[in-house]
Amino acid sequence: MKVFLNDHFLLNTNTAIELYENVGGNLPIFDFHCHLSPQEVWENKPYENITQLWLGGDHYKWRAMRMHGIGERYITGDAEDWDKFAAWAETMPHLIGNPLYHWAHMELKMFFGIEKILSPETAQEIYDECNEKLSRHEFKPRSFIEKSNVKFIGTTDDPISELEFHQLLKQDESFQITIAPTFRPDGALFVERPDFKSWLQKLEKVSKINVNSIESLIKALKQRVNYFHENGGRGSDHDIQKMVYVDTTLEEADIIFKKRMNDEQLSTEELTAYRSFLLKELGKMYAEKQWVMQLHMGAMRNNNTKMKELIGTDIGFDSIGETNLAEGLSSFLDALDQDGSLPRTVLFNLNPKDNAILAGMIGNFFEEGIPGKVQFGSGWWFNDHIDGMEKQMKELANVGLLSHFVGMLTDSRSFLSYARHDYFRRILCNILGDWTEQGLMPNDKELREQMVRNIGYYNAEKYFAKR
Amino acid sequence: MKVFLNDHFLLNTNTAIELYENVGGNLPIFDFHCHLSPQEVWENKPYENITQLWLGGDHYKWRAMRMHGIGERYITGDAEDWDKFAAWAETMPHLIGNPLYHWAHMELKMFFGIEKILSPETAQEIYDECNEKLSRHEFKPRSFIEKSNVKFIGTTDDPISELEFHQLLKQDESFQITIAPTFRPDGALFVERPDFKSWLQKLEKVSKINVNSIESLIKALKQRVNYFHENGGRGSDHDIQKMVYVDTTLEEADIIFKKRMNDEQLSTEELTAYRSFLLKELGKMYAEKQWVMQLHMGAMRNNNTKMKELIGTDIGFDSIGETNLAEGLSSFLDALDQDGSLPRTVLFNLNPKDNAILAGMIGNFFEEGIPGKVQFGSGWWFNDHIDGMEKQMKELANVGLLSHFVGMLTDSRSFLSYARHDYFRRILCNILGDWTEQGLMPNDKELREQMVRNIGYYNAEKYFAKR
Amino acid sequence: MKVFLNDHFLLNTNTAIELYENVGGNLPIFDFHCHLSPQEVWENKPYENITQLWLGGDHYKWRAMRMHGIGERYITGDAEDWDKFAAWAETMPHLIGNPLYHWAHMELKMFFGIEKILSPETAQEIYDECNEKLSRHEFKPRSFIEKSNVKFIGTTDDPISELEFHQLLKQDESFQITIAPTFRPDGALFVERPDFKSWLQKLEKVSKINVNSIESLIKALKQRVNYFHENGGRGSDHDIQKMVYVDTTLEEADIIFKKRMNDEQLSTEELTAYRSFLLKELGKMYAEKQWVMQLHMGAMRNNNTKMKELIGTDIGFDSIGETNLAEGLSSFLDALDQDGSLPRTVLFNLNPKDNAILAGMIGNFFEEGIPGKVQFGSGWWFNDHIDGMEKQMKELANVGLLSHFVGMLTDSRSFLSYARHDYFRRILCNILGDWTEQGLMPNDKELREQMVRNIGYYNAEKYFAKR
Repeated sequence: MKVFLNDHFLLNTNTAIELYENVGGNLPIFDFHCHLSPQEVWENKPYENITQLWLGGDHYKWRAMRMHGIGERYITGDAEDWDKFAAWAETMPHLIGNPLYHWAHMELKMFFGIEKILSPETAQEIYDECNEKLSRHEFKPRSFIEKSNVKFIGTTDDPISELEFHQLLKQDESFQITIAPTFRPDGALFVERPDFKSWLQKLEKVSKINVNSIESLIKALKQRVNYFHENGGRGSDHDIQKMVYVDTTLEEADIIFKKRMNDEQLSTEELTAYRSFLLKELGKMYAEKQWVMQLHMGAMRNNNTKMKELIGTDIGFDSIGETNLAEGLSSFLDALDQDGSLPRTVLFNLNPKDNAILAGMIGNFFEEGIPGKVQFGSGWWFNDHIDGMEKQMKELANVGLLSHFVGMLTDSRSFLSYARHDYFRRILCNILGDWTEQGLMPNDKELREQMVRNIGYYNAEKYFAKR
Repeated sequence: MKVFLNDHFLLNTNTAIELYENVGGNLPIFDFHCHLSPQEVWENKPYENITQLWLGGDHYKWRAMRMHGIGERYITGDAEDWDKFAAWAETMPHLIGNPLYHWAHMELKMFFGIEKILSPETAQEIYDECNEKLSRHEFKPRSFIEKSNVKFIGTTDDPISELEFHQLLKQDESFQITIAPTFRPDGALFVERPDFKSWLQKLEKVSKINVNSIESLIKALKQRVNYFHENGGRGSDHDIQKMVYVDTTLEEADIIFKKRMNDEQLSTEELTAYRSFLLKELGKMYAEKQWVMQLHMGAMRNNNTKMKELIGTDIGFDSIGETNLAEGLSSFLDALDQDGSLPRTVLFNLNPKDNAILAGMIGNFFEEGIPGKVQFGSGWWFNDHIDGMEKQMKELANVGLLSHFVGMLTDSRSFLSYARHDYFRRILCNILGDWTEQGLMPNDKELREQMVRNIGYYNAEKYFAKR
Repeated sequence: MKVFLNDHFLLNTNTAIELYENVGGNLPIFDFHCHLSPQEVWENKPYENITQLWLGGDHYKWRAMRMHGIGERYITGDAEDWDKFAAWAETMPHLIGNPLYHWAHMELKMFFGIEKILSPETAQEIYDECNEKLSRHEFKPRSFIEKSNVKFIGTTDDPISELEFHQLLKQDESFQITIAPTFRPDGALFVERPDFKSWLQKLEKVSKINVNSIESLIKALKQRVNYFHENGGRGSDHDIQKMVYVDTTLEEADIIFKKRMNDEQLSTEELTAYRSFLLKELGKMYAEKQWVMQLHMGAMRNNNTKMKELIGTDIGFDSIGETNLAEGLSSFLDALDQDGSLPRTVLFNLNPKDNAILAGMIGNFFEEGIPGKVQFGSGWWFNDHIDGMEKQMKELANVGLLSHFVGMLTDSRSFLSYARHDYFRRILCNILGDWTEQGLMPNDKELREQMVRNIGYYNAEKYFAKR
């Protein structure tokens, strides 16, 4: 009987324990994709209480609370912070088997030194203890990052951003961690959104380029890519709900763009053509800059219209979509590759049925001297749990080279989510421990330690930063 | 080396054994969906022999026998009962790894006290022993139910049923188990079936409503929902082969209905529109009555035309279909939710690739005070085996709240299938035992016992009966 | 701690070890589908070095090397053989977790008696030792086959082949192994390929039938089926990238055929209709001859256009496609079955999401006296690894009869790939060992040994050769 969440948590063999203790548990963190706010890092404001830190923006927890039958007032509504925390504490014992249960307790332990089990019985004392600590200097946003031994953070940024907080952070000599922007051109790609034209106006303003054609749009985006690059940007990210690709010419894309500017309705085919064209153009820009292109594929968003209208988007009503991405993705990557402009690319899938497709796909494109040029990204969102991470890594190992995997990222809005890197590393050490003890790989200490070191940190650093 | 099917069957840790012995093994059964005949329960006729009990209507076994190369004469044909049993016994040793192998032996042990392994060598003695017992009073249909400690049975019923056997059973004071009808409006939804119009005539007769428009169809169905409700009905069930949803108006649906009444051919789009409209109307009725709506999605039926023409439907020639249900299901549930008329809903998928989609989908809709309002149903039909049940429960736990799961149902035509609840409970206890002993959940006896109690019985009771 | 690749490799219980030692490890091999060249078997030319044997035609290894960032010159280019081997040795330590890592070491051990771990450090000595051995008589192609106790090899052959090497091999009394041709009519089915007409000309030549209509095409193909049959052919194989089926008449197919002969462009619908018609006609021919029809479904080929243009096809740029095959496959098999002409059929899927569909599908069609008439084939290509094989066998067991499974095949171009049968047999023994020791099947030595014997060899022999 292993004690819940003890030092050997998730480590089921002596080899795994040794591997974690020697290597996995001591690596720095390269968090190449998250949704932290650079402004919050810059401002470094203390939290009034654990409710604001934990429940202020975490739609994973909101979703769980709703499934438990908690009223919205205690989730995103105007209830008191303590009442919201109590509602969360009531939900917790029902989350057995869910990663939230592990994450919450890991965060309490790692950042607050609290080893109690959170439940209605312990809610008040944990609330008080957390809040007391949060009032201290060493419990501010930056200290969570520093305590976690983070070296690099890739935020997620709109091309129209001036990146002022990235700049301020860079100038701040008291803060040594790289906070790099990530170019996320949703505004340009989701041409069907009502705010497309107002977004373009902002783009014109920051880029100082008049955007009245697809060509000028590309020019403006290129200006922003350059600007991001100057400000430390080394990657991009894309929300790809349906990965469909059709070869489209500049002229065709321009016609569609202009129809949109005239507020004409676009057909599904036109939307696909426009996005295919623009995504390829963006890919070329990234390749030129030696950036990494991240594709997050397969979310089905805003499933609950009532709540979208009441509260908005990204609040816990997205789920796993189902699309056939194999052909579209192959054609898209091939189109870039034929032009000699396929950038390093990380593919993320939300539907686990696509694990096999991605594990195969990454072997279709390559570049001499770049091990693992196209990457199968770590278990994303609804796959970010023990089973999901194990499946992703094993699928990758079975048909690709696990050894070159760029590993974990938090994809989180919270300063406490670095615990997820520890979760991932324990799982990785455990897999290699199992393989070693079962005689599925040689009992070679250096070999397995090298794998953990690389997958845990150095592959990502090399892939994103040290090219 | 564990002895086959001993007391610790499927229980691999001490915690699992203790959990099963203290809780899982002693719970009553709430079998909310099955295909038992209320008439057979009422009549309570003894079986002549084990062939009639086991092989009379079980298309799982028929299918297995055909795959073994047994001739149809010994399956659904006119061979002697002993010869059919011998053919089944010949098939059995080839079923190693299949749940039928476990179920058959569990049933022999639980109901007949027979612990022999069924094979051609033991066929005669097992046949004789079973038949001897079947001639006794305590081996009649009702006694199988009573011995299994069943509290509730949800049968599957046509809206045109007068529910006469449900009424008789309710009046029978010697029988204390609730046998509730479940509303299954296939007749109304499958508008393309040749017998649609004759079904409507029967509906007119029982509802005493003249059905000549979509509006009057709804009225007649509502009459039946009321009738079912008065007779103890608390739920509905639907065979959804393709989950596609398009918003459809009453007027559009009425035109399609009338085309059908005029024997005009309906297009695929019209079929989809008709079903979308009617299913939503039905959903509203269920919500009004606070019923549970069950959706069984993704079967591909009658794959063998020759056998369909020879013998009929539901005889073992259905299999797993492949459809993209994510979008249609989301739109359908959202449409009801927007109207404030989404009932409690249980989603079942036949294709295991949809596990992830359903586990995600259930978190998109919620209601204050109803934990687990939308449910991901237990491993159905071709997923009703150890791997299938484990996958369903782990997927549910990973992205939802396992704790609120309404658990197992037999979905069976046989009075012996209650063994499947025991199978499920052992698997559930084993999962929680593993998690506890591996330190993945706290070693909290009350917590895990509460989970088994609720998932094993009380969640379903609360969800269906005690609202 | 188990030593890597020791005698108990992959065998985790005493029962598994005993089962492998008594049965699994000593069976002959029935390799019913591979891509060995009958010419190379006939010629039996020695290999100059291990590079030519290992890296000359193995696109699995090429792919791995490219993913490791090796330049093409060292893969399919003009680098020295030693340098290519060194590049492969550099890749090897990065293949931990990939079956290539196991296969390579198993082959070194089984055929060369080398138990060293291949890495840059050991590359030179292993290269030298292999090459020294390859210069000996007992290291020629035929000796690899003989050492592996192979009884039957099913090659993959174009209908236009004269099968001269099969004939020569049959006449060679010094070589006792059956090398049977397998009919692979890609040339006739892929009507859209540029070389379709030149292929037809060759068909006309070998068949001595003038092909100017679909009817004469069928006649010519039938002539080839007969010819293959006379030369030991007992099966066919098909590359089915999308399994779509529409009922098509001879007249319709003839029109499409003639359009193609006139170099008119065919629509997707026409391609589907043509292939549906022809595949069904082929199925009838196979049924008549009591042949086995193999369908390899779901590859997405030639994803990298640049490399296709540079080097060609089948060089490591194929991957896993995604298509909905359930309906098409059901309709196709049903169409043949309705005509009473469904042959024995083995279904292979490349996308593991289709495992469940195939496991279900095989139970829809049957024939008295032929256990397992329709088969779910072993984990293919990107599924040919421990997880893939386990999933295929467990899925098959869960919904079908594992006992009648025809088991493993190499699907390989290499004379060393018989190691994969050993890999498979260890996995099979391990599954049955687990089930026995966990009490999931009776502890019946004869029963489990019979299963291993049949799945390992006799089922395939009976299915393909001893009808």
